[in-house]
Amino acid sequence: MAPSSDTNADASDERKDSDLVLEKPDKIGDADFANYFCTYGYLYHQKDMLEDTQRMNAYYDAVRKNPRAFKDKVVLDVGTGSGILAIWAAQAGAKKVYAVEATYMATHARKLIAANGLENVITVMQSTVEEVELPEKVDVIISEWMGYFLLRESMFDSVIVARDKWMKEGGALFPSNARMFLAPIRTNTANQKYNDFEDSCGGWDNFVDDTRENYGVDMSALTDTFEKEQREFFLNTSAWVDINPSQLLGAPCVVKEYDLNVVTLEEMKSVDAPFSLTVLDAMGNSEVGAFAGWFDVHFKGSKQNPCETEVELTTAPDANGATHWGQQAFYLERGIKPSDGGAVWGRLEMKRKRENQRLYDLKLTWEQGEEQGKPNEEIGESSNVWHIE
Amino acid sequence: MAPSSDTNADASDERKDSDLVLEKPDKIGDADFANYFCTYGYLYHQKDMLEDTQRMNAYYDAVRKNPRAFKDKVVLDVGTGSGILAIWAAQAGAKKVYAVEATYMATHARKLIAANGLENVITVMQSTVEEVELPEKVDVIISEWMGYFLLRESMFDSVIVARDKWMKEGGALFPSNARMFLAPIRTNTANQKYNDFEDSCGGWDNFVDDTRENYGVDMSALTDTFEKEQREFFLNTSAWVDINPSQLLGAPCVVKEYDLNVVTLEEMKSVDAPFSLTVLDAMGNSEVGAFAGWFDVHFKGSKQNPCETEVELTTAPDANGATHWGQQAFYLERGIKPSDGGAVWGRLEMKRKRENQRLYDLKLTWEQGEEQGKPNEEIGESSNVWHIE
Repeated sequence: MAPSSDTNADASDERKDSDLVLEKPDKIGDADFANYFCTYGYLYHQKDMLEDTQRMNAYYDAVRKNPRAFKDKVVLDVGTGSGILAIWAAQAGAKKVYAVEATYMATHARKLIAANGLENVITVMQSTVEEVELPEKVDVIISEWMGYFLLRESMFDSVIVARDKWMKEGGALFPSNARMFLAPIRTNTANQKYNDFEDSCGGWDNFVDDTRENYGVDMSALTDTFEKEQREFFLNTSAWVDINPSQLLGAPCVVKEYDLNVVTLEEMKSVDAPFSLTVLDAMGNSEVGAFAGWFDVHFKGSKQNPCETEVELTTAPDANGATHWGQQAFYLERGIKPSDGGAVWGRLEMKRKRENQRLYDLKLTWEQGEEQGKPNEEIGESSNVWHIE
Repeated sequence: MAPSSDTNADASDERKDSDLVLEKPDKIGDADFANYFCTYGYLYHQKDMLEDTQRMNAYYDAVRKNPRAFKDKVVLDVGTGSGILAIWAAQAGAKKVYAVEATYMATHARKLIAANGLENVITVMQSTVEEVELPEKVDVIISEWMGYFLLRESMFDSVIVARDKWMKEGGALFPSNARMFLAPIRTNTANQKYNDFEDSCGGWDNFVDDTRENYGVDMSALTDTFEKEQREFFLNTSAWVDINPSQLLGAPCVVKEYDLNVVTLEEMKSVDAPFSLTVLDAMGNSEVGAFAGWFDVHFKGSKQNPCETEVELTTAPDANGATHWGQQAFYLERGIKPSDGGAVWGRLEMKRKRENQRLYDLKLTWEQGEEQGKPNEEIGESSNVWHIE
């Protein structure tokens, strides 16, 4: 046995020789802890997020440009990590900040907070927010919970639990609104993925021949299964990409919008939404090789406590480079030719994976034609499924 | 939030849209399943192992060159994966083969076995071997359980359970013996690792400056913790390597030897063994940059049922390339200069990690001198700890 060599040693564990034990709060399942929370226990990973200047500037501005929302208020930071948002809230004059963090990072947050002289304002609690007991209700919940294409990680579930249990009537979520976008893009990677898939299947065929010749075993019974597995990997898995805006073949459309102050757990569990795109290819020589997905969030406060200054954090394609979220590319096995019709419309569905509720399967179903609603009958309806891993 | 982008999508999941559910046997813990067993559910990973010709040839020879051990015998294959060892045992004339596999791969093994016309001889059971109930005792247990540096994955635990519960008196384990080796090697990677560590720490210092300047937060309180985390990652984690024999600066020594037919679970739980090396550097211009560790196993049968032909599977450095196990390199922060004395001796200790019993911490303690037992007092005793991840 032995795992593939490329999976060897990609994480460190700084707790090993110390007396500190990584404490797993009771309510976290073992697999969820192994697959998910563990990642957030490392400073190098926190540093990745803290060096994402678009992320940092947006949250920093959301706090410092909205002093009324924080001055003398009680704040809850859900998943505080290194504690940075809690520190900013305290620096903005919050009366009290509860910083909840499930992983061992809570210990580092405590140290950082003390070093910045804020230990009297901020209380760090190592717990899931589902389990935590606060001594009071809060005016503001601040949290950086967004995953790839907004929903991956399903962490907003925890923010909803906190909101419904601990936020005062009229309190405000930071951020307060979120949107998901879809756009058609030009990309060579779709072809590359297909070639990689073909190469992998060709390699399997050679392997079947060799195994028959060298060891007298016929592996061909598993060829279909292998091809299916590789298809899922190369063609049905979305990829992290840093798109250059020049790759966009048309304006993005908002495919889903959430008012985070009121959305329910049930509404966050899946997505089923129409979308409608216009493919623009003035040069006339490109085809749509993938749909790209990304999100933005806005800090608007709540109806009762609106922000003084609305702040936006977008993860849209940017010539200066992507945020650490990048965009997600959903590659097409057969590209869409704008000459077949400049309109593409259909539905986006997302469901959580059965084996891991923090991951999603995404399905796009679409038609195309010269104008919206008038499908090219020859091409018919297309659909594809991708895993967001 | 969001994981580092390089961790995105490195596994496929071919079961997603089917009705097949990945069944986790009850006795496997959730985290163990997520961290360990999941890997073995993919055919591309099985293919990696099945394309390791040294591994394949050794097991193939162990079966076909020892017909007496299999003809009309009852065989148990622990962790059958795709079923290859079970198939060979059946082709060698076994009366009955029980092929036990915990993961979904059991379904593929069943298909492969039927396609090779052996479904009447081989029974595939999807279960851990700890939970399985066999209708009879067995003559032979065959298993490919070895991990990096032999012990990683701790899978031999399961073979011992099977041996003690299901093997007839005098039955034989395939393989029957295992050895662990240690050798001094020349390598530039030790310096590279140290430079990477320094770069990472330098990067942190810049990050601390930027965070103070841009966001008014002093992160320097976490500098020590970050350095410790990075030191563990770059300098205290062993690495998969494919060593060229020309890198060896002296003969390897056997540091541990197991008679698998009789070793107990307790004896497999940790290692504490002396080692003794002679550094040979005829060119006189190299220093020892790392210790390298690897293993071999032998197929000798048992005392009552010895093999007709003894077969060896070695993972030693090979100019033609490594097995998929490679070797493990334990890099030294300060190289050992042969001019300081050609003898290096000390102890190797291995303990299972508290958080994951399938991983190990390894500690080497050594002295050096012109001859064994006469340490160079100026240099004194050295020691280092590495994680085998």
